Amino acid sequence: MGSKKKSKKSSADAELPVRQPTLTETLRLPPGPVDVGALDSRATPGFPGADKDAAPALMDQIGVDLADRQECLFANGRADGTRRNVLLILQGMDTSGKGGIIRKAIGLVDPQGVRITSFKAPTAEERGHPFLWRITNALPGPGMIGIFDRSHYEDVLIARVDELVGRQTWSRRYSQINAWEAKQVAAGTVVIKCYLHITPDDQRDRLRERLDDPTKHWKYNPGDLDVRAKWPDYQAAYAAALERCNTDAAPWFVIPAGRKWYRNWAVAALVNEHLGALGLTWPQAEFDVEAEKKRLAAL
Amino acid sequence: MGSKKKSKKSSADAELPVRQPTLTETLRLPPGPVDVGALDSRATPGFPGADKDAAPALMDQIGVDLADRQECLFANGRADGTRRNVLLILQGMDTSGKGGIIRKAIGLVDPQGVRITSFKAPTAEERGHPFLWRITNALPGPGMIGIFDRSHYEDVLIARVDELVGRQTWSRRYSQINAWEAKQVAAGTVVIKCYLHITPDDQRDRLRERLDDPTKHWKYNPGDLDVRAKWPDYQAAYAAALERCNTDAAPWFVIPAGRKWYRNWAVAALVNEHLGALGLTWPQAEFDVEAEKKRLAAL
Repeated sequence: MGSKKKSKKSSADAELPVRQPTLTETLRLPPGPVDVGALDSRATPGFPGADKDAAPALMDQIGVDLADRQECLFANGRADGTRRNVLLILQGMDTSGKGGIIRKAIGLVDPQGVRITSFKAPTAEERGHPFLWRITNALPGPGMIGIFDRSHYEDVLIARVDELVGRQTWSRRYSQINAWEAKQVAAGTVVIKCYLHITPDDQRDRLRERLDDPTKHWKYNPGDLDVRAKWPDYQAAYAAALERCNTDAAPWFVIPAGRKWYRNWAVAALVNEHLGALGLTWPQAEFDVEAEKKRLAAL
Repeated sequence: MGSKKKSKKSSADAELPVRQPTLTETLRLPPGPVDVGALDSRATPGFPGADKDAAPALMDQIGVDLADRQECLFANGRADGTRRNVLLILQGMDTSGKGGIIRKAIGLVDPQGVRITSFKAPTAEERGHPFLWRITNALPGPGMIGIFDRSHYEDVLIARVDELVGRQTWSRRYSQINAWEAKQVAAGTVVIKCYLHITPDDQRDRLRERLDDPTKHWKYNPGDLDVRAKWPDYQAAYAAALERCNTDAAPWFVIPAGRKWYRNWAVAALVNEHLGALGLTWPQAEFDVEAEKKRLAAL
């Protein structure tokens, strides 16, 4: 936004109308290689308030819009019209806030319109199928907002870092993922992929909080530190996934997640913008409204 | 509550300590036959505020408790301790507010801890199994709050009214339901069964609202009036289900649902009381907290 304002002063741009970029534009990862380690986890791009104190009121405001748009999406899913739905994919290191976003941002909408899937290590049955099988099974139905807490990206993240499959296998997966996502988008699904960025220091602070607070011990797993020890490998794996799967059909959004209030606001606002862009209207009645009013009055 | 206060004045009770009945006690259906038509849909039993205006603040208050208790239930579900979970069953005529309760009361808790199942007419596959098969498949996992929007009670409601099965079949189902529910309770599930009571006049007003508002047409189905035409038959079927399945293991609660703000508050408060009665504590760490702090500091 800063650079937009500056360009207003240059003579070449003087007559162009100034438009605020949308959050979708602001957070979209540009094409090309990604230096994950150079990203700023505490930035607040596109946040319209002065600081943290502005967040609750902004969230309330989004909540009203979001609930309305979600209901309209749901209503369209019930009607026999165009099949539209939304798939929000949340990826990020432990403590980056996948759960917090679901609680605070997705918690703003009617739970009946949401399907949440949390992907763990695949079961024996799932391992017997191609890696996208269980992902396909978890797709949201018409009118629904599907949430993936982790996703098929684990198949090019942990699978690559821990060598759960050979290089030949995981290296083929990027294009398989791109083809699968393009297919969902073509079928009417709006895919919103969020990489929640934190630094090793952010993670240390948050793991420490969990260890310091007995009501948070259940969220802690000693295995978290084994993953933490491989941070550079994960950084390289994320860089590859972000670069190679940053398609026009399903681009990546980078969410700085060092500040929880920003992270929650950004994802809520991003989903809200995407829903708004669908331009949905309430489905028309497929019955004779006046005739039904008469029937009702007589009953 | 009124009668409790009066009894305080009588000499026999003079020395008894006065305790407010819990909402669980207040709303629990007494044993014996039920005259559904005589129930008051606009009553507000147990509501602690003066009127409707008190509802939003009371809901906010419950929301804080409920979110906390739900998280603790969820945490216990993750730990290898006692297996507890909750099953909230919502039954009532069209427009009685099943969806509204899920949005407003269940919407107060983390959607990750909730599993909602909306039961429609059974599919061909479901019809090939005993009627409790699909119900069993929809049970919440450990630590989860399961919500049934309609339930196995449809198998003694619409199935009885529309004679989808013979009398011999549906009349056997009451004891089958009782046995099934007792089994779930014995396995650690808290079953909360709510009958949402409205009158034919309440329903007329709400269907009329849906017909008058184009943003609500999608919620209206001409078939709703066919069901409405059979109101006395449904009333008899509800009376039988309420009386015959009002067990100690899984009693019925009657929720007057003519006032939406009361109905939403009552179900939220009822779930909150039931969660509180579990007396759950945060699970203990299954790892050495101090050792983990040292490992973290070194990483």
